[in-house]
Amino acid sequence: MKEAGIRWEPVPPDYEQLGGRALIAKLLLSEIPPACDALGPHNKLIFTPGLLGGAIVATAGRLSVGAKSPLTGGIKEANAGGTAGDALGKLAIKAIVVEEQPKNKEFYILELDVDTAKLIPADNSLRHIGTYATADRLQERYGADATVICIGQAGEYLMTGAGISTTGERDQRSNHAARGGLGAVMGSKGLKAVVIRKAVGKAIQLHDEELFRKAAKAYAQKLITDPKLGTKGSQHLYGTASIVGAVNEMGSLPTRNFSEGKFEHAAQLRGEKLRELVLAREGKVGTRCMPGCVIACRNLYPDESGKPIVGTVQYETIALVGSNLGLGNLDDVATLNYMCNDFGLDTIETGAALGVALEAGLAKFGDIEGIVGLLKQVGEGTVLGRVLGCGAVTTGKVLGIRRVPVALGQAMPGYDPRTLKGNGVTYATSPQGADHTAGNAFGARNEVPPLGTAGQKELSLRLQIIAAMLDSTGLCLFGRPPIIANPQLMIDMINGIYGWGWTKEDYDRFNRDVLRTELEFNRRAGITKTDYRIPEYMREEPLPPHNAVFDVPDSDLDSVFDAL
Amino acid sequence: MKEAGIRWEPVPPDYEQLGGRALIAKLLLSEIPPACDALGPHNKLIFTPGLLGGAIVATAGRLSVGAKSPLTGGIKEANAGGTAGDALGKLAIKAIVVEEQPKNKEFYILELDVDTAKLIPADNSLRHIGTYATADRLQERYGADATVICIGQAGEYLMTGAGISTTGERDQRSNHAARGGLGAVMGSKGLKAVVIRKAVGKAIQLHDEELFRKAAKAYAQKLITDPKLGTKGSQHLYGTASIVGAVNEMGSLPTRNFSEGKFEHAAQLRGEKLRELVLAREGKVGTRCMPGCVIACRNLYPDESGKPIVGTVQYETIALVGSNLGLGNLDDVATLNYMCNDFGLDTIETGAALGVALEAGLAKFGDIEGIVGLLKQVGEGTVLGRVLGCGAVTTGKVLGIRRVPVALGQAMPGYDPRTLKGNGVTYATSPQGADHTAGNAFGARNEVPPLGTAGQKELSLRLQIIAAMLDSTGLCLFGRPPIIANPQLMIDMINGIYGWGWTKEDYDRFNRDVLRTELEFNRRAGITKTDYRIPEYMREEPLPPHNAVFDVPDSDLDSVFDAL
Repeated sequence: MKEAGIRWEPVPPDYEQLGGRALIAKLLLSEIPPACDALGPHNKLIFTPGLLGGAIVATAGRLSVGAKSPLTGGIKEANAGGTAGDALGKLAIKAIVVEEQPKNKEFYILELDVDTAKLIPADNSLRHIGTYATADRLQERYGADATVICIGQAGEYLMTGAGISTTGERDQRSNHAARGGLGAVMGSKGLKAVVIRKAVGKAIQLHDEELFRKAAKAYAQKLITDPKLGTKGSQHLYGTASIVGAVNEMGSLPTRNFSEGKFEHAAQLRGEKLRELVLAREGKVGTRCMPGCVIACRNLYPDESGKPIVGTVQYETIALVGSNLGLGNLDDVATLNYMCNDFGLDTIETGAALGVALEAGLAKFGDIEGIVGLLKQVGEGTVLGRVLGCGAVTTGKVLGIRRVPVALGQAMPGYDPRTLKGNGVTYATSPQGADHTAGNAFGARNEVPPLGTAGQKELSLRLQIIAAMLDSTGLCLFGRPPIIANPQLMIDMINGIYGWGWTKEDYDRFNRDVLRTELEFNRRAGITKTDYRIPEYMREEPLPPHNAVFDVPDSDLDSVFDAL
Repeated sequence: MKEAGIRWEPVPPDYEQLGGRALIAKLLLSEIPPACDALGPHNKLIFTPGLLGGAIVATAGRLSVGAKSPLTGGIKEANAGGTAGDALGKLAIKAIVVEEQPKNKEFYILELDVDTAKLIPADNSLRHIGTYATADRLQERYGADATVICIGQAGEYLMTGAGISTTGERDQRSNHAARGGLGAVMGSKGLKAVVIRKAVGKAIQLHDEELFRKAAKAYAQKLITDPKLGTKGSQHLYGTASIVGAVNEMGSLPTRNFSEGKFEHAAQLRGEKLRELVLAREGKVGTRCMPGCVIACRNLYPDESGKPIVGTVQYETIALVGSNLGLGNLDDVATLNYMCNDFGLDTIETGAALGVALEAGLAKFGDIEGIVGLLKQVGEGTVLGRVLGCGAVTTGKVLGIRRVPVALGQAMPGYDPRTLKGNGVTYATSPQGADHTAGNAFGARNEVPPLGTAGQKELSLRLQIIAAMLDSTGLCLFGRPPIIANPQLMIDMINGIYGWGWTKEDYDRFNRDVLRTELEFNRRAGITKTDYRIPEYMREEPLPPHNAVFDVPDSDLDSVFDAL
């Protein structure tokens, strides 16, 4: 991009059998200096579908975005639903790799169509506006069926809490590759948006159609008949919000800046309440973000008059901008969710930053007007807005607060590690920092007691390997049960598409190599075990009501990857 | 301090033969978890004179302050002139070690007298006020000859650019253990000030008075007859500002956020100009900060009406808040210097932070009113003030600027490493981060060409070892030439006081052990070579007018301590 140019390249052989997170790991380790300035010219920003992208496998069209993270200082992959993964797959584009950066802070739009690509300057009507307006304006120009990947004000201002938004199926608003500050990397590259025109009539070529179809169908069937995922399942009915009650019961629901694990108004935030409200207001439930998804876990949340505010209100957002801010009202959550989405902010990072700001006294917990007043400043780019937009660590540093819920510089998602210790192990060891999608132990709570330390490191490693597979194939986290039960389904789908003849050993090595490559990147970036640790206060301050601390021994954390 | 209590302890045998920076290194490595939260309860804040403290050796009464740094994440020692080192030495207090922290954010005053110590709550009249008012009020209470060590607003607000102020000889205003955010550590301990009453008639006990007197006298004589240091020398006449012209000629004077190495108005900032102005206004030159100093390099800078503004205007301040902000006027420098001193801010860190803020467009380079308006906010504790008070890294992060002149998270002093590469090596390897006192190659510029890379790593190591000796004995940097020429003088003074029978080997080991201990602390704190590096842009952006980049190879940086 030194001269704002575009190069088409054949896929190098080393990258051939990679996609999504796996490709990001390999490409970044091979092509950028791991110690480089994440917002400087040597970082590379990658958009890549998973290996199943474009094949219309149920739940498998996620778009992976990757770069060195300006938030964690380590490698980062964040993925999102929507139509982008499918669209790139159909165009047979393995990856878009954005290099260098413009010298005079210009902004560009990358326009992709079948066999053509253009970089065009972003005119003023596209600057300093939110992701909703950006997507709307670009879809007006390029058609309502074009996919728009873009940043909001947060990314333009290089805020390290900025994510990347991408459009999806109609009427479901936006999806977000939210974590790790990748929106700031996109901003540093001077890229306001990528527009992918719908590739009418294009489909990916299948090497062995029968093998693929059989496996893909069996996989979809398993999802449909799964009691949790099918049309009578909690995930379809209530979406990710279905777990609010259970996490609260566990005493792991972040409440008032992670100072408590149970929230007195949790009932008002539950998935059941969400569904009831949305239906009563004639909003939507059971919508999907990706073509072909059979789970359809989303909702389109309307205000009291029935006007859509935001889709989809998810568990992590409910926890971080709801209970974590003392807000026991889904309308408040939806309002903050909309604002974060529009500014192009990670709701987890921003919720955590706001929690820290409330602890510092900038507004009161539960005071929605005060909180909206703070968050509004991010879009305005005031100094306080920039502080909040940079996330929890920066907010804590500036405001002199040491109770900052992060690992590797990234805010924790909606599970306090003191009472769900498997997640604590993941936060404290994942090369991605504190991510709920990096290895979430919540689903295994009946198998490994979440308050104990025994078995957590083995559990976390197992989950981290599966997560690496999901993020590299484009699968949604919800799609994992059939693949865990029968990995051959995934192997057959991959072989059916590509004809690589993968064995179970190849598949295992592929998944583990993702983590190995990422850990090596972070090691070369100068990250040590100390940087990964759970914050001191969480190891010492008991979390009510269980009064647990995070007490998994360092020796366990340091040896998680011994079995990798 | 859990119950705000005081414990007197005999000096443990392991700490007996240590003082100043050497004691800080050993105590922190032995007693605190290196990975602890620097602003949390496990950090310890140490006040300790050097080994010569209290003995009234010329230039040897500096007070060392140490803790884990909230700015660099590594070990920190910063020292200051004034009467504190001497006062503690005479009271036979090896160190004050401040542990734990108050739970309800109360603030205290520690009052020290012969054999008594009290912790008393700091009343409201002492809260949220600057260091000058704090010192004045406490000297009103305890006597004008009491030494007051204190923090200003910056330390109270836990800003990581906060230093610690200490009073000195009459009419010379304040001295500062400025670097590394130690003021924030003092703030986190709830300690607003330490008052040391003058120990009338107390003197340290000498083991071999004759040996000591002979060496101390010879040492003082060497200083007096040194052409640079004596009463006709440039250091006495012009103070540290004597080097402005030479650094500018080298193209190493930080100018407009380290974007140039020569400043067109440098002549207006030179030591000669400073002396001329101060004398014309009936201010003072040739004053001293410590009892017994024969160099007397200080000045007391008055405004146009002759009213003292600040003492002493020094080179580093001139470079960082003068040329670095595009200000070619000593009155402007003195104004900003006063404000930094009063708020209790490191002028180097704050000057660098302001430079970054000006690059972000918050005011124009050279616009003193705009810059004062920004700096004023630190004292007011506004969000922007807190950002600036947290230093250059935080300011760059919040404002989205990547040209941030730091190493190990700490702002560089007044020598651009691109054109004084020996200093670059020190910045990029010292366990203290970018400090001009950690091993300053400026004085060796005729010996090792500053633009070349050859010989820089050997030079830096030699200087770093000497710096460790200076900082551990309480010696001023200016006092080093006689000791370098004849180390036996130092050995005799130490043996004369303590009777330890040190040999040259003991002395060498002592000095090197300081660095070894500090490096080990930082290693355990999780700091890697990547964290120490000179910023990417300085390795790539040529610095006008020499158009040099920092190009000392990483292999040289990584092997600096091989010969330690």
